[in-house]
Amino acid sequence: MTVASLIHNDFEDLEFWYPALRLQEAGHSVHILGEEPDVTYLGKYGVPAASTHSFKTANPQDYAMLLVPGGWAPDKLRRYPRVLELVREMDRRGAVIGQICHAGWVLASAGILTGRTVTSTPGIRDDMTNAGAIWVDQPVVVDRNLISSRRPPDLPEYGRALVNALT
Amino acid sequence: MTVASLIHNDFEDLEFWYPALRLQEAGHSVHILGEEPDVTYLGKYGVPAASTHSFKTANPQDYAMLLVPGGWAPDKLRRYPRVLELVREMDRRGAVIGQICHAGWVLASAGILTGRTVTSTPGIRDDMTNAGAIWVDQPVVVDRNLISSRRPPDLPEYGRALVNALT
Repeated sequence: MTVASLIHNDFEDLEFWYPALRLQEAGHSVHILGEEPDVTYLGKYGVPAASTHSFKTANPQDYAMLLVPGGWAPDKLRRYPRVLELVREMDRRGAVIGQICHAGWVLASAGILTGRTVTSTPGIRDDMTNAGAIWVDQPVVVDRNLISSRRPPDLPEYGRALVNALT
Repeated sequence: MTVASLIHNDFEDLEFWYPALRLQEAGHSVHILGEEPDVTYLGKYGVPAASTHSFKTANPQDYAMLLVPGGWAPDKLRRYPRVLELVREMDRRGAVIGQICHAGWVLASAGILTGRTVTSTPGIRDDMTNAGAIWVDQPVVVDRNLISSRRPPDLPEYGRALVNALT
């Protein structure tokens, strides 16, 4: 299957890369969606990741899953109406959406969190509940098509949940 | 099972973290062996990793696998007689040893590469063959207990091989 992962500068290096590599290990293709294709973005620590496609032209029908990394990239990504549309369209058809750490900001701006149970970094817990979500403090939370996780040490459990969701 | 991963400054961030997180996902414990325990080392890009144990006091019998990350950490690690002993003792009893990228320097200094088929970053191909290894250009190579890989884009195949080796 094909998975889309959103990218922008100052993504959390491991929160972007662990799921991307893990889903490749499980046999899936990962498209890295930036504002433009073939742009190298740098993580918070400086690990690079090059976009392969643009989220401006991406077709949500092409993807079985949408990943939103943490770090400061979500603060940038939520400003693009096309990103929010992509999140809403994929949620509408029940595609798996993964959010970790600060990624929940993007889902809050897309307006899809009402009544959904999620976790996130405790730092944005208030933003999650103000967006209508039920917030719980667990390494990984699965609420139908929405899979959420808190922070880098949760990556083993997050990775397992993402792979299971496509099995 | 319990896995040991060696650490020193300027490790390749993903080459250290992907295997460590992946083996945790598969249910194993990962001990991070630095010169001292509880020291935070920084990867080439700056991703941190804190040692949990010291390689000076580690007992090779405690571990089912020894991982050596790439980056510049291997250039440091090969200078410690205790690290080289640890590699030799684990190899002697057939425990799985994983080397990726520049990690092969440590195995070369431990003197365990004679007649073994391995891969590595092409940058140290000559050091591998001069140490007696047969060098091949493949994403992952398994020669009995020795599993080797070339570089970060090979991590999905390296991760799969490491997990399979403990299954």
